[in-house]
Amino acid sequence: MNFCSDNTTGAAPEILAALTAANTGAAMPYGNDDWTRRVEARIAEVFETEAAVFLVATGTAANALALSVLAPPYGGIVCHPDAHIQCDECAAPEFYTGGAKLVPLAGPDGKIRGADLAALLAQPGRGVHHAPAAAVSISQSSEAGTVYSVDEVEALAAAAHAGGLRLHMDGARFANALAALGCAPADLTWRAGVDALCLGASKNGAFAAEAVVLFDPGLAEAFAYRRKRGGHLLSKGRFLAAQMEAYLTDGLWLRLADRANAMAARMAAALQGVPGAELRYPVQANEVFATLPEAAIRGLLADGFSFYRWGGETSTLLRLVFAFNTRPEDVDAFAASAARHAGRAA
Amino acid sequence: MNFCSDNTTGAAPEILAALTAANTGAAMPYGNDDWTRRVEARIAEVFETEAAVFLVATGTAANALALSVLAPPYGGIVCHPDAHIQCDECAAPEFYTGGAKLVPLAGPDGKIRGADLAALLAQPGRGVHHAPAAAVSISQSSEAGTVYSVDEVEALAAAAHAGGLRLHMDGARFANALAALGCAPADLTWRAGVDALCLGASKNGAFAAEAVVLFDPGLAEAFAYRRKRGGHLLSKGRFLAAQMEAYLTDGLWLRLADRANAMAARMAAALQGVPGAELRYPVQANEVFATLPEAAIRGLLADGFSFYRWGGETSTLLRLVFAFNTRPEDVDAFAASAARHAGRAA
Amino acid sequence: MNFCSDNTTGAAPEILAALTAANTGAAMPYGNDDWTRRVEARIAEVFETEAAVFLVATGTAANALALSVLAPPYGGIVCHPDAHIQCDECAAPEFYTGGAKLVPLAGPDGKIRGADLAALLAQPGRGVHHAPAAAVSISQSSEAGTVYSVDEVEALAAAAHAGGLRLHMDGARFANALAALGCAPADLTWRAGVDALCLGASKNGAFAAEAVVLFDPGLAEAFAYRRKRGGHLLSKGRFLAAQMEAYLTDGLWLRLADRANAMAARMAAALQGVPGAELRYPVQANEVFATLPEAAIRGLLADGFSFYRWGGETSTLLRLVFAFNTRPEDVDAFAASAARHAGRAA
Amino acid sequence: MNFCSDNTTGAAPEILAALTAANTGAAMPYGNDDWTRRVEARIAEVFETEAAVFLVATGTAANALALSVLAPPYGGIVCHPDAHIQCDECAAPEFYTGGAKLVPLAGPDGKIRGADLAALLAQPGRGVHHAPAAAVSISQSSEAGTVYSVDEVEALAAAAHAGGLRLHMDGARFANALAALGCAPADLTWRAGVDALCLGASKNGAFAAEAVVLFDPGLAEAFAYRRKRGGHLLSKGRFLAAQMEAYLTDGLWLRLADRANAMAARMAAALQGVPGAELRYPVQANEVFATLPEAAIRGLLADGFSFYRWGGETSTLLRLVFAFNTRPEDVDAFAASAARHAGRAA
Repeated sequence: MNFCSDNTTGAAPEILAALTAANTGAAMPYGNDDWTRRVEARIAEVFETEAAVFLVATGTAANALALSVLAPPYGGIVCHPDAHIQCDECAAPEFYTGGAKLVPLAGPDGKIRGADLAALLAQPGRGVHHAPAAAVSISQSSEAGTVYSVDEVEALAAAAHAGGLRLHMDGARFANALAALGCAPADLTWRAGVDALCLGASKNGAFAAEAVVLFDPGLAEAFAYRRKRGGHLLSKGRFLAAQMEAYLTDGLWLRLADRANAMAARMAAALQGVPGAELRYPVQANEVFATLPEAAIRGLLADGFSFYRWGGETSTLLRLVFAFNTRPEDVDAFAASAARHAGRAA
Repeated sequence: MNFCSDNTTGAAPEILAALTAANTGAAMPYGNDDWTRRVEARIAEVFETEAAVFLVATGTAANALALSVLAPPYGGIVCHPDAHIQCDECAAPEFYTGGAKLVPLAGPDGKIRGADLAALLAQPGRGVHHAPAAAVSISQSSEAGTVYSVDEVEALAAAAHAGGLRLHMDGARFANALAALGCAPADLTWRAGVDALCLGASKNGAFAAEAVVLFDPGLAEAFAYRRKRGGHLLSKGRFLAAQMEAYLTDGLWLRLADRANAMAARMAAALQGVPGAELRYPVQANEVFATLPEAAIRGLLADGFSFYRWGGETSTLLRLVFAFNTRPEDVDAFAASAARHAGRAA
Repeated sequence: MNFCSDNTTGAAPEILAALTAANTGAAMPYGNDDWTRRVEARIAEVFETEAAVFLVATGTAANALALSVLAPPYGGIVCHPDAHIQCDECAAPEFYTGGAKLVPLAGPDGKIRGADLAALLAQPGRGVHHAPAAAVSISQSSEAGTVYSVDEVEALAAAAHAGGLRLHMDGARFANALAALGCAPADLTWRAGVDALCLGASKNGAFAAEAVVLFDPGLAEAFAYRRKRGGHLLSKGRFLAAQMEAYLTDGLWLRLADRANAMAARMAAALQGVPGAELRYPVQANEVFATLPEAAIRGLLADGFSFYRWGGETSTLLRLVFAFNTRPEDVDAFAASAARHAGRAA
Repeated sequence: MNFCSDNTTGAAPEILAALTAANTGAAMPYGNDDWTRRVEARIAEVFETEAAVFLVATGTAANALALSVLAPPYGGIVCHPDAHIQCDECAAPEFYTGGAKLVPLAGPDGKIRGADLAALLAQPGRGVHHAPAAAVSISQSSEAGTVYSVDEVEALAAAAHAGGLRLHMDGARFANALAALGCAPADLTWRAGVDALCLGASKNGAFAAEAVVLFDPGLAEAFAYRRKRGGHLLSKGRFLAAQMEAYLTDGLWLRLADRANAMAARMAAALQGVPGAELRYPVQANEVFATLPEAAIRGLLADGFSFYRWGGETSTLLRLVFAFNTRPEDVDAFAASAARHAGRAA
């Protein structure tokens, strides 16, 4: 039973079915196909606005490409110190922007606060001697498994726009946040001030599919060239589009996210019965960060559970990630194992 | 009936089956899975050597990443003026290398000749004032649908290595060349002096899968970081690997290429019966370049055939590309239509 | 006697005097000084327009930085195959633009023709698959020692602007062209459609000083950051400005260029008396390209003259460059030596 | 009286004299001149080792180019949070390296400690997901006006090399550190483990001259191309070399630095007589960081003194920088003014 990440799963049956169905006949390459057109229309409908939509195969590509049209090569990009773009993308944003500088801004529970951003931007500039902040990037849900409320996004967007910055949302787990909040996609994005959204599907049931949604269509032309130049324009584009189309049809994305979120909540509740277990962050989406007694951790490993110690091999903080197909019985088995081993140790 | 490109097709049934079969259970992400291990072993077996193998989803990514470990940012990369990397990748090689300069070197039938390369490299240098040539890139099969013989590759490699250059092979259609020559993969690559091969599957039956094969394992570490930094490390790596594994199993890749090549040969033969039709290049793989009377072209379009006029909308040079699933009757129908319209015009 | 280049000389006395005079008292760094303000005003006056002015120390920096604000990283930059930016700057334009692609466009006498540019731009595009042309760069005077007339610049600008391209002028030898034409600086630049001029002084009497003149002030902010980011914002900026101020005061730049041009003309005339000597290009500025008998070349070298064989060590085409301080007697001595050795050989 | 920076001064008379003397006759361009050869020999002598030496005109260029041969584009560069490369170079290191990531590591008094570096490097890696640390950069003297002892440099080098990192020293004020320590240049650099030194002269009496000293000659070839590509190879190279030659002749550099350091010490002592004044860091080179009462600051400004409030316009922390030509009477006048205004306020 693997709680390492939501990308250890395969694809949801609906998405495999869509891929299989798309594998018939000839279709023009490079996104000049009917599937891609339908995905664009679907996203416009779901988000209640016209937007420029670009499909790519990885979240890192989505983020880095999006940032490359939001910040100049001499610009700064504000993000949380734990942000995926800062910690887990091997300097892809620096590469795609041509050398922009990530500017870490701390905040509780894995989130940046609008007031802190405003304070940062109020600091005196250094003229041409320092890379001027040009964009701010937030992860929704965050790397701590928490969720920005609509109000929080609005506050950040207000501070960003007041300072002339664009707001980027890394939505690798956007569906999880959306499912948690129950609000309209538009309310959580462009209506709140988000300029560009990376809408992930790979972690939530697709094989490999991410949509970059640019709410400012003026960014589209540069993005199109940059996607091709980055090698991210797939030739048989219909297969990316078919995944994303299925994902956004009949609420599949929210159903899958709901299940994952429910498993995280189930785990959080179950850990209350584990002596010495302590949640690090509020559990709001599909991730649980919890400190466990070392004995419990070793016992869990011995019992065959897989997960990451967060921060290194001697850390007792675990990150547990839940996917669309995580089974309740596996969650329960994990908690039972932890409780058993923790109790024995105590 | 679509002769625009070999990427207008879907995937071969064997590859869809492999993808479907891989969609079960949990697997560690980012290439840390059994499928990826098996592909690495399979490629070592097929190429009769240990090599560093990296999977990506597009040919542009494969080429640009490979070149980025073969040439420094201030280097030159010699290629044919019609090379895909020069004409069709939107400056991706320049992007990934950090600014290296493509140096076009003409040659007949879409191929560079070793002697011409040697002559180019014998020209006096300009010291630090000019980007020094660091790599040469050839397409196998070429953009003209022709194939480099083993001898030709060896001559190029000898000239390249004598000048301190590395040899890159863009093998988006490598299987077509290999099937045409009937030689061992090793003979056409590392034994002939190729340093890095981009082995394509996307144009020959995969959804999206390319393998970069580095015959110098010293290049592997840099490549691994650069792939991630480029956003080309897929999280659910098993699905790339499953495609490539099926592709290289039981000779599937050669069977698919054989069929495509055979259709090109059939078209070349059939066009001899079309008044005014003239082949531009020898037909050696799965592409036919032919000049047709304008009346024939218009007639073909009216009859519902799709293809590209090569070089612009008034050109009468057509590029016809054949895929693993092109049907003989479609080839025959094309030739018959062309003959009918050409005859009427004459 | 050295005819290798106009950068083998030192600085003109007036410029040394200005540098010395500026070396007194404290001045704020990074261009926040009175000398820089005066240069900006002087350039506005000389060019009869407000423009953004940036000083740097090398022509390569000036060109590459200027191009970086005229073309996106995925863009194409059209230039003559012999252009300095193409042949002699070690891929600096590619570096500063972040990977743009130089697109060579041939033309007689080292110049691009407007009609050829228009024809190039009329070719069908390849969408995102090819770097779209974004700028055209011309050298004034050209690398062949010829000069674009005002009409020729206008024709190029018209073709460029019609295609959405910006026009860059590499004016490392702008003063020589201006002196040759005798027109107003404005007529040869912005009134003719030039968007950005690199106005060189280093080859014409300065120690090291070049001004980038952006006739579109909207480009200034990005340029300022890019100059700093490139390490080209000198801390003691007054010393760059003092050179340029002296250069543009009381017509010094034109006097210096006139002398250099006159020496080239003198050499061209004198070579008519050398058996077997033949001019390659019209002599219009301060360079002479001439084919000489091998015996004459060897004799000249034996007599202590320095110059470049153009195109390699066995070439009999010489490039002879004349500077503000070339002496008439040295020109005459060169021609006499050549005549003597050529005559002996014949 | 200007205490803003050591780059508000002009050049020392000896350096102007050297520049003037060099302005005679022809010399081959691009560093192929006798002055450059002599500087290389002089640096080898001063540093008691053969090293590759490259001259450029700015400290930002020196640092960024040096880092570009020490770290790959996907690498990390550890530096102090206040480092010039992090705060004041507008992302030049990111630009020149092609996107490497600066990794701030805090430490007291503007310096990184070897133990902290070792601890940082002992943290578990993230494989290809995170830019691997490849170099560490320290400023000598530091941005806090403090000086690394030989032992401290050795400890850092040991930690760096143990982790596979190269050690870069930003020596914009290297002479000030050297004069303060009184040790041999070799002891403070390559013998202690420094791989590349940027040896500044611009802040200590030159017009504009910095030497990059690569103690690993294997880095030289790449550096030479990168310097040209960055537009930092001056055509009339003798004028850079003449400055640096004079700087390193007869101990001029140390005499100039000694005077600047003495003025800082004099100020530090004098501030003890200013009510409410407090030194922030030990005064070890040519900079003083001191908190003063707001009344004193306003009085100083009213009296015509120039300096920077450090950290913004309401800060009461001042940075005072002393140059080779700062006069004792100006230091005394500053302290007297501060004391008078501070006393009045109290």
